[in-house]
Amino acid sequence: MILDCIFVGMKKYISEFVGTFALIFCGTGAMTINEVTNGSIGHVGIAITWGLIVMAMIYAFGEISGAHFNPAVTISFAYAKKFPWSEVPKYIVFQILGALLASFTLWFLFPESEFYGATIPSTDAMRAFVLELLLTFFLMVTIINVSTGSKEVGVMAGIAIGGVVLLEAMFAGPITKASMNPARSLAPAIVSGHFQDIWLYMIAPILGALLAVATCKLVKDDNCCDGDC
Amino acid sequence: MILDCIFVGMKKYISEFVGTFALIFCGTGAMTINEVTNGSIGHVGIAITWGLIVMAMIYAFGEISGAHFNPAVTISFAYAKKFPWSEVPKYIVFQILGALLASFTLWFLFPESEFYGATIPSTDAMRAFVLELLLTFFLMVTIINVSTGSKEVGVMAGIAIGGVVLLEAMFAGPITKASMNPARSLAPAIVSGHFQDIWLYMIAPILGALLAVATCKLVKDDNCCDGDC
Amino acid sequence: MILDCIFVGMKKYISEFVGTFALIFCGTGAMTINEVTNGSIGHVGIAITWGLIVMAMIYAFGEISGAHFNPAVTISFAYAKKFPWSEVPKYIVFQILGALLASFTLWFLFPESEFYGATIPSTDAMRAFVLELLLTFFLMVTIINVSTGSKEVGVMAGIAIGGVVLLEAMFAGPITKASMNPARSLAPAIVSGHFQDIWLYMIAPILGALLAVATCKLVKDDNCCDGDC
Amino acid sequence: MILDCIFVGMKKYISEFVGTFALIFCGTGAMTINEVTNGSIGHVGIAITWGLIVMAMIYAFGEISGAHFNPAVTISFAYAKKFPWSEVPKYIVFQILGALLASFTLWFLFPESEFYGATIPSTDAMRAFVLELLLTFFLMVTIINVSTGSKEVGVMAGIAIGGVVLLEAMFAGPITKASMNPARSLAPAIVSGHFQDIWLYMIAPILGALLAVATCKLVKDDNCCDGDC
Repeated sequence: MILDCIFVGMKKYISEFVGTFALIFCGTGAMTINEVTNGSIGHVGIAITWGLIVMAMIYAFGEISGAHFNPAVTISFAYAKKFPWSEVPKYIVFQILGALLASFTLWFLFPESEFYGATIPSTDAMRAFVLELLLTFFLMVTIINVSTGSKEVGVMAGIAIGGVVLLEAMFAGPITKASMNPARSLAPAIVSGHFQDIWLYMIAPILGALLAVATCKLVKDDNCCDGDC
Repeated sequence: MILDCIFVGMKKYISEFVGTFALIFCGTGAMTINEVTNGSIGHVGIAITWGLIVMAMIYAFGEISGAHFNPAVTISFAYAKKFPWSEVPKYIVFQILGALLASFTLWFLFPESEFYGATIPSTDAMRAFVLELLLTFFLMVTIINVSTGSKEVGVMAGIAIGGVVLLEAMFAGPITKASMNPARSLAPAIVSGHFQDIWLYMIAPILGALLAVATCKLVKDDNCCDGDC
Repeated sequence: MILDCIFVGMKKYISEFVGTFALIFCGTGAMTINEVTNGSIGHVGIAITWGLIVMAMIYAFGEISGAHFNPAVTISFAYAKKFPWSEVPKYIVFQILGALLASFTLWFLFPESEFYGATIPSTDAMRAFVLELLLTFFLMVTIINVSTGSKEVGVMAGIAIGGVVLLEAMFAGPITKASMNPARSLAPAIVSGHFQDIWLYMIAPILGALLAVATCKLVKDDNCCDGDC
Repeated sequence: MILDCIFVGMKKYISEFVGTFALIFCGTGAMTINEVTNGSIGHVGIAITWGLIVMAMIYAFGEISGAHFNPAVTISFAYAKKFPWSEVPKYIVFQILGALLASFTLWFLFPESEFYGATIPSTDAMRAFVLELLLTFFLMVTIINVSTGSKEVGVMAGIAIGGVVLLEAMFAGPITKASMNPARSLAPAIVSGHFQDIWLYMIAPILGALLAVATCKLVKDDNCCDGDC
């Protein structure tokens, strides 16, 4: 009973926790299993895994928490006045906890892995920074426009956003692993101990997502990307 | 005429029978044909086959039987009070019969196969158990949330659920074959005679699916995952 | 003007002609280009091409002609009393003409090809017959149930049906090329001169599609698959 | 403030600019990264990238600018009397500017690339011309029929059109790179200096798209493809 009462106010946070857990477990799980089985999944398979788990979790939890699963998305929704700033820290905490549970579960299941899907760029940090910024820009352009569009377009949100994650993991994966998400980069870094260039995965996605909201304000009527629609 | 009368009450069971037959024939058929043609389909192709046949059968039979095709799904829908317990044994029988027909048809068409898509883990049973439990948890989290969501989200059920099956077959296939379904593991085991670790494929999916329903009760309003919406 | 008048009554047939032309040009084009470029597209790429062109043409022409593009589908819709028998020969003629134009265009563009996507089984004719019958059964089960379902499910018809074509080309392509369509097998046979086992591709799809309609009559209410919904 | 006022009338053009930038950056980016990483993405991955970015940008910007991103589409919509001729030059200018920004950004990020996704046919110019014309014909047949269909079909526009781009990049990519878009061919040609056969990529897509509108006039009721629905 008391537990029930506590959980009543927790629905949104549990959604972000479970959704981010699923997202990071499947996505970095694909990279981990590919690593320990000598490439049995392949680059195309990893990208498909990332895109589809994002799509599925959006349809599962979109109506409960908004299905952010990503601190950069949460922060830029607040910047767009579509999400209260006061909720931002709580969302981010549960996103990071979900990601950490995923990485620790993978560490338990596949102790022989070295990377657990950690995001280590194959290029210099400056280029990786620009690329991650652009990737998150494209992702958030899609998220913000779809979520402020008509109801019909809103139904397709999961497909459109999952599609962007899939395609960006596909084409940019070989360069930066296409993180676009600070929580997604942080958890495997902690579990694997690979912290190279981690700072860029904390900053570039947030800047790219904020830039997308700024662009949205240029193309939408009135103040739709400024909280008012 | 008499046959017609018998079939009137059988619509749901025939749907589960035909849907599970299609699911297992195409999914384990992809694995069987891949085996007998020396890998002509590939791991990515097998995962895509599994995901899309689930999607198609949900759109074909969802409005008739609910499109379970899986004893773990049927049991956990009953646990969520969204399906009568009295129907559970009948659904499971027709699911297993459909799966058996699929495996025997593959045995007739491809007698040279050894495995017929049997699920044999490539890791130890404990890890395979945990992984199958988590895979079915993610699957059922998607199923239960989408089926208790708005009507708009309900339309996307086939895409969301088929997408989860596709991605889980993709990333976890190399470890456990990503069964998530006792009927799916039982039929090829019987036809091929490969019963190693079959018990875990009977138990883990059911536990994972029940756990998903329990989680759903934490994130949905009122008693929506407790029969009441 | 006179041309316009002729075309007024021709809308449906032109739709079937253009749609089948697109379907066969892209699908067998993928196989032809894969042949003349030493496998640059690959089996997965060919299956994806088949599934997506079916999906796209259903959304393009579904509301004009019903988007059959396949004599087996046209005949079994007539058997289900959802399409007038008097229209069947005209639909089939325009489907075959569209397929022939596609194969001749490929012959003009890629004279170095030997097969132009002709369907030659890699197994004996009996097994190929059974497999083609089952493939078309699964395809038509999906078509008839989706097209007699709710309006919401009807919107997903292109995705569900294109998905079935994709997955069946994926898993059964190595054995029979997954034709499921007499017009699709006839045109490349004529252009390439490869007529081996062509009879089975004429008969098995029609039987499989009729069987699907018979099954539908068992699972749908009243006489819904018998013209009455 | 003044900047805001300027941008008020610019919403459509900014949408075409950002959408075409995203489209060309991701699509030719996949080709560029595949080139500089020795094929890590693969042909299937490149085709998937093209299709999904088109799909996502249609859902992001379709309700603002119509989501053309392609001079051939813009011109043929004007020919169909569904878009004012006076807007055509402005749309084309912003499409080309977006494409150029994409190619220059790729040149900055990957200076070691030689082609930046330039479209150079692997066959003679005549065959490439016919193929590009047909590819754009199939693309525009889908666009014009879906955009003049029912509201329900309109919701699927992004999936249907993205699907066509994906499948055409898949099957025709090895021959002509499946441009279907003068802006898409122009920008990488300028940045890479590879102008071989560029003329055909300027002309064939426009002819193919106009032919599709002409066909549409034959299959749609009244003057629906002539501005009147």
